[in-house]
Amino acid sequence: MPQIHSQKEDTIIALATPQGVGAIAVIRLSGKDAIRLTNQVFFGKNLEQQSSHTIHLGTVRDGEKVIDEVLVSLFIAPKSFTKENVVEISTHGSSYIVNQVIKLMIRKGARPALPGEFTQRAFLNGQFDLAQAEAVADLIHSDSEASHQAAMNQMRGGFSGEIAGLRTELIHFASMIELELDFTEEDVEFASRDDLRVLVEKLLRVVENLISSFDLGNVIKNGVPTVIAGKPNAGKSTLLNALLNEEKAIVSEIAGTTRDFIEDEINIGGVIFRFIDTAGLRETTDTIEAMGVSRTREKMKAASLILYLFDLGDTDMVEIHRDVNLLENLGVPFLKVANKMDKGNHQLINELKDIFPDTIFISSGKRENLDGLKKKILELVNLDKFKTGNTIVTNIRHYDSLNRTRESLLDVLNGLEQEVTNDFLAMDIRRSLHYLGEITGEITTDDLLANIFSKFCIGK
Amino acid sequence: MPQIHSQKEDTIIALATPQGVGAIAVIRLSGKDAIRLTNQVFFGKNLEQQSSHTIHLGTVRDGEKVIDEVLVSLFIAPKSFTKENVVEISTHGSSYIVNQVIKLMIRKGARPALPGEFTQRAFLNGQFDLAQAEAVADLIHSDSEASHQAAMNQMRGGFSGEIAGLRTELIHFASMIELELDFTEEDVEFASRDDLRVLVEKLLRVVENLISSFDLGNVIKNGVPTVIAGKPNAGKSTLLNALLNEEKAIVSEIAGTTRDFIEDEINIGGVIFRFIDTAGLRETTDTIEAMGVSRTREKMKAASLILYLFDLGDTDMVEIHRDVNLLENLGVPFLKVANKMDKGNHQLINELKDIFPDTIFISSGKRENLDGLKKKILELVNLDKFKTGNTIVTNIRHYDSLNRTRESLLDVLNGLEQEVTNDFLAMDIRRSLHYLGEITGEITTDDLLANIFSKFCIGK
Repeated sequence: MPQIHSQKEDTIIALATPQGVGAIAVIRLSGKDAIRLTNQVFFGKNLEQQSSHTIHLGTVRDGEKVIDEVLVSLFIAPKSFTKENVVEISTHGSSYIVNQVIKLMIRKGARPALPGEFTQRAFLNGQFDLAQAEAVADLIHSDSEASHQAAMNQMRGGFSGEIAGLRTELIHFASMIELELDFTEEDVEFASRDDLRVLVEKLLRVVENLISSFDLGNVIKNGVPTVIAGKPNAGKSTLLNALLNEEKAIVSEIAGTTRDFIEDEINIGGVIFRFIDTAGLRETTDTIEAMGVSRTREKMKAASLILYLFDLGDTDMVEIHRDVNLLENLGVPFLKVANKMDKGNHQLINELKDIFPDTIFISSGKRENLDGLKKKILELVNLDKFKTGNTIVTNIRHYDSLNRTRESLLDVLNGLEQEVTNDFLAMDIRRSLHYLGEITGEITTDDLLANIFSKFCIGK
Repeated sequence: MPQIHSQKEDTIIALATPQGVGAIAVIRLSGKDAIRLTNQVFFGKNLEQQSSHTIHLGTVRDGEKVIDEVLVSLFIAPKSFTKENVVEISTHGSSYIVNQVIKLMIRKGARPALPGEFTQRAFLNGQFDLAQAEAVADLIHSDSEASHQAAMNQMRGGFSGEIAGLRTELIHFASMIELELDFTEEDVEFASRDDLRVLVEKLLRVVENLISSFDLGNVIKNGVPTVIAGKPNAGKSTLLNALLNEEKAIVSEIAGTTRDFIEDEINIGGVIFRFIDTAGLRETTDTIEAMGVSRTREKMKAASLILYLFDLGDTDMVEIHRDVNLLENLGVPFLKVANKMDKGNHQLINELKDIFPDTIFISSGKRENLDGLKKKILELVNLDKFKTGNTIVTNIRHYDSLNRTRESLLDVLNGLEQEVTNDFLAMDIRRSLHYLGEITGEITTDDLLANIFSKFCIGK
């Protein structure tokens, strides 16, 4: 169980900002002696006599040598991220200076932090639960509005609240059953079996809802797997490039804050779409007709969205009908996208509008109606659930724990059905509680913690 | 002339930490409305009612949407880097969040900062002079103890103090001369021509000292150009790799703070040595004998240090004598380095120790006595001047201004010699004052400032 306000004897140190050249770099220390150690190398004022949440200008010196002019921010326990004493040293953004300051502090008695060790200390000191700690890492790596909102919701405790609610109900349930165990010879029944069944069934629905949200959570975190399908020369590659260039133009409008572009990942309306097998796509070998080939078919079935693209100047209704049939049999949501809208003959266009009124007409080469296409794409990947602020499971560890909770709850239901004794029922309920507790960290092992926090970056 | 405490109406914003994934990112705002604008998006407390140098936990929100939980640091004018109101927003280290926060603040009325604009405002508000502002950029890019100390000395005003001293003496000199101009018809002499000559000669010596320190300053900033010369198979490439690997092992001892290695740049005792034409060296085509070829000779003459490496198992005294003669004629400092010390026959070794007692015996393959070699290298590149804290000119702009000052002072001396009239003397003195003033920024033009600060990174 997490301890409260236990400051570690050893003080950890790490660079908290990214490596590289910038205006400033921030070095973070946490531990009982963080302020005392910093005070030994800081010249300006006595840091041990200052209030929490104050900033102090001075120099860091190694003996006579001035390493840098710095700003030192003080956070006195428990009013800090880790609930320990925390110091942030803001230096000029040179890796030489950062190195010198960290080496100096290590000589004074600090030790280099392990990955995620600051967040681990925050968790151990009860700053937040495990699911919230994991959300900190997700937040740092989120690169779209959807993944950011899911991580933020989890960090701010939305998900933990839902799990805590489930646990409270289960604990109540368990205590009733275990009370009966104490009076087993007297054959009392504190909890009506029918009421318990109703409760477990209700909990199961909530757990199953969370489990099913993982598909969406996964898509939010890792992107919607999308395929652009169509005949060679339908303009698949041109469409992909047009979408990518539009995004680049939007994102790069603020100098110095552009993100690294991942080839073939496109942010549409705050959701990442991950285009599958675009290498093949660029070679224009990926045709609908090839769907007979099982590899191509499997690839398309793995997608969450297919853009079926056809060239108005190089198709007819027979072909379109055949392709739409094939796609409908596949069972993956798809959009009919008529490309080169300026080239189609009026008869074909009118026929299309008549038979498939949901067809979107674009020109990827001339970048016409791309906004219309994006709007339709967002409509098709149903993110309403997410938009309304419902809790979404994005973490595979949580997904696993929820599945095990579900199995345990099914065992409880089964036990009720077969009228097993209370001690069997109690065992299954305790198993459910255990798996739910793993999510928020009420139940932890050192291995589990080590595994979670080792995936964090150093300095977090 | 710099103005004091003139807060700009427009508030600038930029990411102050490097781009990329880290635990935290710091966004900086400066300007009259920096605190007011931040307060519009910050939820937690009223930032406009807080003291300077305090830190506040809260959330940044875009309407209903929480963008991040942040720490906001306040610096109230004039107690800040720019002497304007400054806010630093410390967010989770996600480029998505950074982008959202900056976009939000721009919508609220901030504008993206130009490169170096924070430092430029600090200069314009009298925080420091131009030479000090330039040192900020040098400090960020310094990657060795020597370049770091030179930049730190300049940033802390050492160089500016020297220039200011020169100017004061010259201004005194000028005022005397100009006073005489006012009394020109009365033929008075406030300043004895002999005293003036002594003063100008003294100033000239100081200026010439500073000019000559530029060679050292250049070496400190850009590295000591070094050549390893020797016959094929003498072990040149093995030696370079041995030195490079030792440094890598030292630098990478603290996880997360390793610097990017530049191939063929090696930090020895705080000084960067830049190995020239190591590509050729790796092909072992670079022999002493090839010195007859003028290209090779020129390359070696351009070096500040030559390591003359020979294989004890594959040479004799005749060869060594010939090479040493050639190198002495070259006029570049060089070290005699006897490699494969275990392979030499005793007679050759004894003879060497007798005739060239300064020979260093190493084994680059077995990494023996590399420390001895490094010690000798540092002795040879005479950094005593630097070590004693003397002012070193590292900036080519300052070097140019000092050269022009020197020319003007020589013109003054010349004028004294030829007994020119006071108005000619006064003109030459004013020219000297002008060029010295350019260094510290007493004399500036918009072009000059734009040129200097455009080389800064954004956020500085």
